[in-house]
Amino acid sequence: MTSKPLPRHFTVLVRAIPVSDGVSVSDAVDRFFREYHSSTYLSHTVVHQTGKLRRLLNDAENICIKLTNLKYVHRSSQDAPRKFLGLFGRNDVLGKYQKRLEDVEENVRLEQSDATRRQEIPAAFVSFRSRYGAANAIYIRQSDNPTEWQTEHAPDPHDVYWPFFSTSFMERWIAKFVVFVASVLLILVFLLVVVFVQGLTYLEQVERWLPFLRKILEIAVVSQLVTGYLPSVILHILSSYVPSIMKLFSTMQGFVSVSGIERSACNKMLRFTIWTVFFANVLTGSVLDQVEVFLNPKEIPSKLAVVVPAQASFFIAYVVTSWTSITSELTQTAALFCHLWGKCAKCCRSDESKAPSMPYHSEIPRILLFGLLGLTYFIVAPLILPFVLVYFCLGYFIFRNQLFNVYAPKYDTGGKFWPIVHNTTIFSLVVLHIIAIGVFGLKKLPLASSLLLPLPVLTLLFNEFCRNRFVPIFEAYSTESLIKKDREEQSKPEMLEFFSNLVTAYRDPALKPIQRASNSDERTAPLLASV
Amino acid sequence: MTSKPLPRHFTVLVRAIPVSDGVSVSDAVDRFFREYHSSTYLSHTVVHQTGKLRRLLNDAENICIKLTNLKYVHRSSQDAPRKFLGLFGRNDVLGKYQKRLEDVEENVRLEQSDATRRQEIPAAFVSFRSRYGAANAIYIRQSDNPTEWQTEHAPDPHDVYWPFFSTSFMERWIAKFVVFVASVLLILVFLLVVVFVQGLTYLEQVERWLPFLRKILEIAVVSQLVTGYLPSVILHILSSYVPSIMKLFSTMQGFVSVSGIERSACNKMLRFTIWTVFFANVLTGSVLDQVEVFLNPKEIPSKLAVVVPAQASFFIAYVVTSWTSITSELTQTAALFCHLWGKCAKCCRSDESKAPSMPYHSEIPRILLFGLLGLTYFIVAPLILPFVLVYFCLGYFIFRNQLFNVYAPKYDTGGKFWPIVHNTTIFSLVVLHIIAIGVFGLKKLPLASSLLLPLPVLTLLFNEFCRNRFVPIFEAYSTESLIKKDREEQSKPEMLEFFSNLVTAYRDPALKPIQRASNSDERTAPLLASV
Repeated sequence: MTSKPLPRHFTVLVRAIPVSDGVSVSDAVDRFFREYHSSTYLSHTVVHQTGKLRRLLNDAENICIKLTNLKYVHRSSQDAPRKFLGLFGRNDVLGKYQKRLEDVEENVRLEQSDATRRQEIPAAFVSFRSRYGAANAIYIRQSDNPTEWQTEHAPDPHDVYWPFFSTSFMERWIAKFVVFVASVLLILVFLLVVVFVQGLTYLEQVERWLPFLRKILEIAVVSQLVTGYLPSVILHILSSYVPSIMKLFSTMQGFVSVSGIERSACNKMLRFTIWTVFFANVLTGSVLDQVEVFLNPKEIPSKLAVVVPAQASFFIAYVVTSWTSITSELTQTAALFCHLWGKCAKCCRSDESKAPSMPYHSEIPRILLFGLLGLTYFIVAPLILPFVLVYFCLGYFIFRNQLFNVYAPKYDTGGKFWPIVHNTTIFSLVVLHIIAIGVFGLKKLPLASSLLLPLPVLTLLFNEFCRNRFVPIFEAYSTESLIKKDREEQSKPEMLEFFSNLVTAYRDPALKPIQRASNSDERTAPLLASV
Repeated sequence: MTSKPLPRHFTVLVRAIPVSDGVSVSDAVDRFFREYHSSTYLSHTVVHQTGKLRRLLNDAENICIKLTNLKYVHRSSQDAPRKFLGLFGRNDVLGKYQKRLEDVEENVRLEQSDATRRQEIPAAFVSFRSRYGAANAIYIRQSDNPTEWQTEHAPDPHDVYWPFFSTSFMERWIAKFVVFVASVLLILVFLLVVVFVQGLTYLEQVERWLPFLRKILEIAVVSQLVTGYLPSVILHILSSYVPSIMKLFSTMQGFVSVSGIERSACNKMLRFTIWTVFFANVLTGSVLDQVEVFLNPKEIPSKLAVVVPAQASFFIAYVVTSWTSITSELTQTAALFCHLWGKCAKCCRSDESKAPSMPYHSEIPRILLFGLLGLTYFIVAPLILPFVLVYFCLGYFIFRNQLFNVYAPKYDTGGKFWPIVHNTTIFSLVVLHIIAIGVFGLKKLPLASSLLLPLPVLTLLFNEFCRNRFVPIFEAYSTESLIKKDREEQSKPEMLEFFSNLVTAYRDPALKPIQRASNSDERTAPLLASV
């Protein structure tokens, strides 16, 4: 437990608050927690429908950016000779945008000041005087009806994903279904791509598909490039778009926090990577064939022992090409191109003032994939090990630098990505064992095969032990630590200030006028000064 | 929540108590709960190793029974002329047994009085002053190390299965493994029996197996009996032995309460019944063939639509023969035979003074099987419905009578068998839908088949709703109800007495001298009076 008290340690997110006629959500929450948690209840913040307000704020933001850009172009056009664009009375455009900005800001102020316009959502952040009080509210069911007064851990205030609260239960339900279908479709589409990419490693097949390329392909360098390097490059480029799609999917699923969204995206991405990059490349052939292998459990080891070594050279090439992608992380090539593209095409400055946050959901699955490759191939193609080692060393130094100097953490992960890493490593180990058993079986060494059988069992037992011993720590604090911490803090004078801040910590940022002002201050200061 | 306060509402079973050198388990428990639950902690009872004591008490009990029987025979032999058994100086035998009883009882007293002889087990029943205090200790992890201070609901004092506590962790682990293997073996053995029994329905096959019976089988009545009635009778008789085996398995698995053992046995029995009685009979053929059907999910409906109707007559006969078994419940034929057997063969009176308790673990799965049969067959062989209806009517009246007049409840089930019933009903409904889809597919009505597809989905959605809405109620009380109840009881004067009883409620019965004395009073009173 971190030594500093954080709002999320004292706060509980309550959802599905039942409201009878004539009683506001706020009153219902207050009455309930005063009744049942009288000694520890501190305050609550009801969540409001702020979709419209958020849209207005977005509009204002966009207009601000446009104004800044216009000003920038205007100023440079005053120095440089006028271009044809300058013909259309730019000053009028500037004035028009400023008028629109003022209108929108007036609307925002109106919307913020008039509480009756906002609909209350039956969800609230309830804060308590002690960590143990909050834990009591989370882990013990509150209401006789389990579908009411549902409590869960509150994320940190800046980690809350506010737009989620605006969606209704039905919308979330439908979104979940859509996300499921979309994920399946994505994997299927990607599998087709992989089959095509795998075809490239066989030159004859490429020549059959694209006969007009035959002449070019006959050049030794080109053919080596096409068969050895091109497939992995295509895979890398395509894979680089998937994380953002997966994050979009997770966003639609209705998590209340950004960290929750990224964790879910990380899981999705991991499954996607292992299936489409590892298994689909290993089990080349039609999708149905692959499924059939897994329906016949006895044949899995021998099948894997045949198909895994066959793809060794492809995966070694894959690891080598990854060196480029991980060094491009250092040069931030993608961000640079993005920036240049934005500058040239859209002629507007995007949000450059903020440091980017670490994209855990795309980096963790990628690193875990290389762990899987290293583990599964070291028995059939040990040549892969030095390449994987170089990748990991590069990764260590590059990400160390990036984490220290480039990325700014958006939220405290709380080490919650670790169980994902642990589970994947166990999975990789079991795959390794199965392949080893299969390989020894193929080499007609049945004794070695059967001596290896206890290995996966022992690995799974170890996993079971870890699940019992360590996973609960990731899920909840213990009574022991909560009460110790509460007692330590009781006497501290700074806690009074902390609690007074806690009361307003979970205000929707869309409702904070000060926040908006400072926000516009930062970005539009030069503009407003010139007005 | 029942209106009367019960010890289990205020008590928590704590296991895996860490003990440092020189500190007893009792002190460790006291210190921990005084530290972290100072306001609600009431008392604790550490569990002791009482295996030896329990054996001694068993010996004493057995000798008591033998003595009673001997006295009974002795008395009757004084009236009746002496038989050849009377030659061997019975009075000496009586004296010898009495001497042994006294020795054993002396040992018991010695063992009970000397606390240093008993090893403490790192488990304790900890009682609290309020229901909410106990809930706090159960639902929030107590220690930083999740493998220590594990808490769970305490069963009612008379529901505790004491011998379990004597087994070590390793013993329980091995027992679990043995139980798993034994269950699989039991199902395999039973499947072989079912294949044989199913063979009986085809007369030619019987004649091939047992050629010497050909002449007898040619008689019309015999052949009708053999093909129509005998298979179900054999199945019924064999099935009647399984519940006690399953209960034995569950006992070995390490549940702390009798109710837990019976619930687990009920689950085992249910799986056993559905697999060996329903699926094995439906999918006659080798075991491997059956497994293959389930590996090809697309073919399941059409396969089921073929094989299920084929066994309709067998299951109708099965339902009809069950009438006998349920009416034998009324006459308690099995108990009568058991009693007679015990009286004749072993010449000893067993524990007849207590009313038997309802064998939920054998009755619930049986009734659920008939629900499954009725649901799955009403679309392909509606003739089964009146027979099932008669079964359920008989069952209602007979079990109503038995529950009121015959069985004495051993523990409060707390309605915890209901989720089992619910889940099985949902399962039966889904099987029904799948069969219906298959049947319409076979009848070349693809439109009807596809119109039915939403049905299983809707059923599963309904199940999901029930899982969210109702299952939590079976698992835990809510803060709302706990605190309401606590406040109601605060002012009641009888609570003082309740709490003073609570302190000693969870004493091991093997350690209660009064209990032993009254016990021996009941059973050995006439004997002791004559000594």
